[in-house]
Amino acid sequence: MKIAIAQLNFRIADFEGNLNLMKNAITEAERDEVDLIVFSELAVCGYPPLDLLEQRDFIDKCTDSIQILAGCTSKVAVIVGAPVINPNEKGKKLYNAAFLLSDLNIEAVRYKTLLPTYDIFDEYRYFEKNFEFKIVQFRGINIALTICEDIWDDQPVENTFSRTRLYTDSPMDFLIRQHPDIMINISASPFAANRLNAREEVLRQNVAKYRIPLFYCNQVGANTELIFDGSSMVLRPDGSIADRFTPFEEEVRIYVLENLMNPPEAGATETETNLSEEYRIEMMHKALVFGIKDYFRKMGFQRAVLGLSGGMDSALTLVLAAEALGVENVIAIMMPSRYSSDHSITDSVKLAENLGINCRLVKVDPVMDSFLGQLIPEFGGLPEDVTEENLQARIRGVILMALANKMNMIVLNTSNKSEAAVGYGTLYGDMNGGLSVLGDVYKTDVYAIARYINRIAEIIPYNILLKAPSAELRPGQKDSDSLPEYDVLDPILYQYIEMKDTLNAIISSGFQKEVVERVISLVNRSEYKRFQTPPILRVSSKAFGLGRRMPIVARY
Amino acid sequence: MKIAIAQLNFRIADFEGNLNLMKNAITEAERDEVDLIVFSELAVCGYPPLDLLEQRDFIDKCTDSIQILAGCTSKVAVIVGAPVINPNEKGKKLYNAAFLLSDLNIEAVRYKTLLPTYDIFDEYRYFEKNFEFKIVQFRGINIALTICEDIWDDQPVENTFSRTRLYTDSPMDFLIRQHPDIMINISASPFAANRLNAREEVLRQNVAKYRIPLFYCNQVGANTELIFDGSSMVLRPDGSIADRFTPFEEEVRIYVLENLMNPPEAGATETETNLSEEYRIEMMHKALVFGIKDYFRKMGFQRAVLGLSGGMDSALTLVLAAEALGVENVIAIMMPSRYSSDHSITDSVKLAENLGINCRLVKVDPVMDSFLGQLIPEFGGLPEDVTEENLQARIRGVILMALANKMNMIVLNTSNKSEAAVGYGTLYGDMNGGLSVLGDVYKTDVYAIARYINRIAEIIPYNILLKAPSAELRPGQKDSDSLPEYDVLDPILYQYIEMKDTLNAIISSGFQKEVVERVISLVNRSEYKRFQTPPILRVSSKAFGLGRRMPIVARY
Repeated sequence: MKIAIAQLNFRIADFEGNLNLMKNAITEAERDEVDLIVFSELAVCGYPPLDLLEQRDFIDKCTDSIQILAGCTSKVAVIVGAPVINPNEKGKKLYNAAFLLSDLNIEAVRYKTLLPTYDIFDEYRYFEKNFEFKIVQFRGINIALTICEDIWDDQPVENTFSRTRLYTDSPMDFLIRQHPDIMINISASPFAANRLNAREEVLRQNVAKYRIPLFYCNQVGANTELIFDGSSMVLRPDGSIADRFTPFEEEVRIYVLENLMNPPEAGATETETNLSEEYRIEMMHKALVFGIKDYFRKMGFQRAVLGLSGGMDSALTLVLAAEALGVENVIAIMMPSRYSSDHSITDSVKLAENLGINCRLVKVDPVMDSFLGQLIPEFGGLPEDVTEENLQARIRGVILMALANKMNMIVLNTSNKSEAAVGYGTLYGDMNGGLSVLGDVYKTDVYAIARYINRIAEIIPYNILLKAPSAELRPGQKDSDSLPEYDVLDPILYQYIEMKDTLNAIISSGFQKEVVERVISLVNRSEYKRFQTPPILRVSSKAFGLGRRMPIVARY
Repeated sequence: MKIAIAQLNFRIADFEGNLNLMKNAITEAERDEVDLIVFSELAVCGYPPLDLLEQRDFIDKCTDSIQILAGCTSKVAVIVGAPVINPNEKGKKLYNAAFLLSDLNIEAVRYKTLLPTYDIFDEYRYFEKNFEFKIVQFRGINIALTICEDIWDDQPVENTFSRTRLYTDSPMDFLIRQHPDIMINISASPFAANRLNAREEVLRQNVAKYRIPLFYCNQVGANTELIFDGSSMVLRPDGSIADRFTPFEEEVRIYVLENLMNPPEAGATETETNLSEEYRIEMMHKALVFGIKDYFRKMGFQRAVLGLSGGMDSALTLVLAAEALGVENVIAIMMPSRYSSDHSITDSVKLAENLGINCRLVKVDPVMDSFLGQLIPEFGGLPEDVTEENLQARIRGVILMALANKMNMIVLNTSNKSEAAVGYGTLYGDMNGGLSVLGDVYKTDVYAIARYINRIAEIIPYNILLKAPSAELRPGQKDSDSLPEYDVLDPILYQYIEMKDTLNAIISSGFQKEVVERVISLVNRSEYKRFQTPPILRVSSKAFGLGRRMPIVARY
């Protein structure tokens, strides 16, 4: 039996486009005499559809798509994910379903049991839990067909407050009693650089426990914040990995089931999981470039504009944007003020030259003076303070938005995760943008990715890598004036945000109590700013945005 | 037996403050020889705590609070809501619990069963469902103690995609078999002007079904977007309403249980629910004023600033802010441009005079010219377009933010729900603000509230009510140039957003197909703007913000 796994890039609510993607894959599979082709979770509508699932029109289109796909299965059978209406009177209105379509019919429908409802996932908002477990039969093969988290039951997650577990056996425990020959899991599992091996471990555990081959089909594609890397996999019954898909790429690959049933031939070397720090940075880099590229494509934009300050964050954002969109589609704007150092211009120009990017200079000071001319009479003689710093940042934000509006571009936000965490940014100023590229990348990782980019040649001028970080909003300002050094700040933030460690746990990792308390206080007290932040490309297990919901009005 | 219901204003994460509120109420209850005092759902930490529930430190403080409260129950027993750790190994880590504290002990703990996971509610993100039902005994009285949604099981909700139901009997069906004498329900149920009678109907249905008295204790207070009106109630076994609490106010009231067991005395008239249009507008007005007031108090700010355009939205926002904060704490800024009509100033000045509010004028044109001086060389000869309109709006936004920063004020956003829905607003311009006052109020309701405010005297100049709505961003511009009239637009929006009706259902309500399609398309295509919107005071069953989660990258 020939099974094809289709790792494709679906677009949310693009029923026609998604159908075409699948139809093309089916046509090719017919040519290759494939028996069964597998598409990912909620493939007909794309993942995550969010509250579109509450619209009846949307669900009807999903149902239509399944009918149309069933009509394409005269030769090749299809497994595909779609929402379906819950026929019961009580419980949530929908199920998250996997369909087996074959011989022009809907042969079987199976529902998802473990509905992730934590971080960016809200599946219980829409879907009812399944409690009936039945294998699917197809051309003499018994298939344990599951959806995403259904094979994650035994997996500990770092935040134990977010379990989605059953009280009884796992879905696979139920299914295995019906003697399946293979496991097929359809997924929509997003990328997280700090959990690169999590999925593989889960897949290995399942195979180790149930001793049958596992076909894992994951969605690829970026949907605003969420980046799906794909990284689909096929495992043999002995637990070895028979194949890995290229991450961040659309691919359809075909397997002869019989060839997978035996252990790999002697001498064949299995691809090991790369867990090096270098690989983590490489994958983060890939994810960010892919995230930018897919956002622009799906929004229907070609061109990006960003402010180039001479600092590390905007330099890296520029390089990533150039990789994603092409140097001809990125414009860098230098907007120095009276507080900017000379090297902010020279370094920026050098970077733009290295990349071959159009770099323009727009002056901030004349506009600043014009604003102050109107505002100083209203300021009632109050001394200079953070107001004037914010004003500079906001003038820059307005300039970028004007250029973006006039020339049909999207402003890329250049803030990093460390400053987003502690609230070092100006709302409606440097916090502007259609997409935040580095908002889930800590400053220390910003440097690591920059070094990775420079591994062969000096693309980002070394001076940018070497100079002390500064917002340059007042004379001689440095980040370290008011923040701990980033190699202290970032690990504290990681423990607090990603790991949700307690104050005492963080202190006992070796940090000063006052420093930890101050950092946590800064994070908590800037929730109101992050409420209005642009969508942030998520590359960790806990990014700012929909996956982290904090009250603004709270006593912190 | 004397039972006190405490409708109090808890602040999220303010453990000390919340404890003090409750301790004071207990002390007073002791004086009045009360047997049992009832506080609302999750009272120890305030509702909604959101992802603070995932922090171990936060949960420990909740546990400590319960211990401290137990120590206050030597005379008066306490019923109070708090999260508790789920002792089971599987399932979500927490329960949403109701404690009975008495004689310095934790006498009983009961868990919530029906966990709302729709709209702004994410309870299944944090809490495990309860499936064990047991009444609570207290001084010879059997109490059916439930939490919020647990008594809503039989209630149809307009959006049938969002049910949180059991497959079996409701929690009260289970409890009634144990012969309770009374029902006590502790709640955190937010205000919605379009569902004013929903809660009362549910309470009446429960009493009609179970024929015992019902004490309903709801939280009061605004927590950023969410406004809790309280409106606690007590019902007699015959279904009549024995008492209603004042909405939007903290109150503790005491009841002698024996007096409630009989029907009301002959001649006593029961307060009827007021479902008039006038009352809906009155309540919306109250909710908005309360929402502003509590936001400022809890954020620790006294003063607000807003832009006064001469239009209806900013006029109403100014009046509401003045009511909430006092006229001395609100500053109105007029920022006319070359496109502003003369009446934009005269009407604004008249309004400010009527209120006795400090009204200042800051010019936009000089700053606009300064921006254009820098930008025109970069615009490459492209013609004037929406860029220049946005630029004006953004200059105004920057001016307001500068004044707010300098004088420690919060900018109030003045956009209404109709324009937020169709995306008529400029990001980082008129969409700025710490809080959106009217973002959940359709334009037709904006007028209705304005007429309500003017019911006795002309506070808002009639000319503002009478003139055609316009953004005044280009010569002679009117909203109706590009939008249907608001009495057509608003009902379409209501059907699409609040009711989630299909396209065909909206058309068959009597609207033109092309108009409906255009409006829906405008709503869908402006999701990216609303992603960065300020928190919006929620006064309906479906506001923009956390309660409505839509993908940005989707094919609309």
